[in-house]
Amino acid sequence: MAGSISIIGIGPGALNWLAPGARLALENAEVIVGYRTYLKQIESIAPQTPRESSGMRHEVERARRAIELAGDGKRVALVSSGDSGIYGMAGLVLEMLGGNPAAIQVEVLPGISALNAAASLLGAPLMTDFAVISLSDLLTPLEDILRRVGFAAQGGFVICFYNPRSHRRTEPFERACQILLKHCNPDTPVGVVKAAYRAEQEVRHVKLSDLSALEIGMDTLVIVGNSTTQLLNGRMVTPRGYERKYDLGDGS
Amino acid sequence: MAGSISIIGIGPGALNWLAPGARLALENAEVIVGYRTYLKQIESIAPQTPRESSGMRHEVERARRAIELAGDGKRVALVSSGDSGIYGMAGLVLEMLGGNPAAIQVEVLPGISALNAAASLLGAPLMTDFAVISLSDLLTPLEDILRRVGFAAQGGFVICFYNPRSHRRTEPFERACQILLKHCNPDTPVGVVKAAYRAEQEVRHVKLSDLSALEIGMDTLVIVGNSTTQLLNGRMVTPRGYERKYDLGDGS
Repeated sequence: MAGSISIIGIGPGALNWLAPGARLALENAEVIVGYRTYLKQIESIAPQTPRESSGMRHEVERARRAIELAGDGKRVALVSSGDSGIYGMAGLVLEMLGGNPAAIQVEVLPGISALNAAASLLGAPLMTDFAVISLSDLLTPLEDILRRVGFAAQGGFVICFYNPRSHRRTEPFERACQILLKHCNPDTPVGVVKAAYRAEQEVRHVKLSDLSALEIGMDTLVIVGNSTTQLLNGRMVTPRGYERKYDLGDGS
Repeated sequence: MAGSISIIGIGPGALNWLAPGARLALENAEVIVGYRTYLKQIESIAPQTPRESSGMRHEVERARRAIELAGDGKRVALVSSGDSGIYGMAGLVLEMLGGNPAAIQVEVLPGISALNAAASLLGAPLMTDFAVISLSDLLTPLEDILRRVGFAAQGGFVICFYNPRSHRRTEPFERACQILLKHCNPDTPVGVVKAAYRAEQEVRHVKLSDLSALEIGMDTLVIVGNSTTQLLNGRMVTPRGYERKYDLGDGS
């Protein structure tokens, strides 16, 4: 009899932000598969349960292994960071099983993604429409990414950038910043959050004109405001529009 | 001494998807303020703690009351559904306190938003870049909303629509569907999720050409795929791009 795969987003990393439904699926698993950094973040959960880990960029290998174990009848938990449904492992498993409607049961469980976590630490930047773009061109052609940056900026979307830059991969970020500066005010507020809700957390507020000079890496999420976004008492806030209809007073 | 406000997203509604960090803030509060439907969903948490509720569309009143109570020295929990930072209460409170850097401490806590919840039930539609648009024109001019729909469709974004339609407000949805059909294949997969993770949950897969005829309401999230999105074994999947670099095999 075939087993099952629960694809779990463990949230930003601190167990305080792992939902009970996702924790339960980890506790019920017979084997937990994941990138070793994420397995370390959940090492206190079901410590007796066997783990199978692999390194960064070995997602295909991990998905294949999860499918193999489930094919052997195991209840498998496959772990992503954040939300497994946002640039996570959910799509890969469903794609690999796609042409083959096996008896393997697959469930995708929601989690708190980097955009949810970063926004909360910055203030309230996502009160109006926003776009989410990964700047990694490993799997998406750079021209497609940059075209989207242009459309998002023209549309007045707040923009969340995942995977903004790595040591080797700096061009997408630099070119995205150039495109943003063509369409947006250089003073537009930008929030930069590294390692949200983890020990190494850093929260910075900068102007769009200063963004390209920042030293940032893959563990960082960047949120670029739109033309209405403000910095209020050190928080990044995009008004929802209540001020058009209501007297919001002075808050006192 | 001034108090504090914790702005909490309670997730889709089932307590299984409320993160421990958010639950803790509810348990530590001296008073919990929120829309009465959301307070009902968390009635089992800290049942002794006083509640103050009001009806739909009274967000400004609730935010003002939370600020008033915190000004009196209380530890206040202010409750949104989903993620309080995505079309939730976080922005309103920070706006109202904006010109007035009072001693009131405000923290925004992340949650599982409707987009995270709906995507997990549909499969993996958000594996690539996506845009998030609210079709409510109560606070945003309709022309701005429709302009964004056009840019998102031209950019090849997957699109998540919040607040797609109410009994009285049908025009934004109908016009958004028309715009999408101008730019996208009428067979584009669309996922429609009502009341994710609640008793009344409904998950439907339709084609873009059939979307405008659906009877849907405010408790529904709509995710429109892009040109690469497929329906695989009944799940909506937007490939991340691994198939460009790897042989994904047949999953067996």
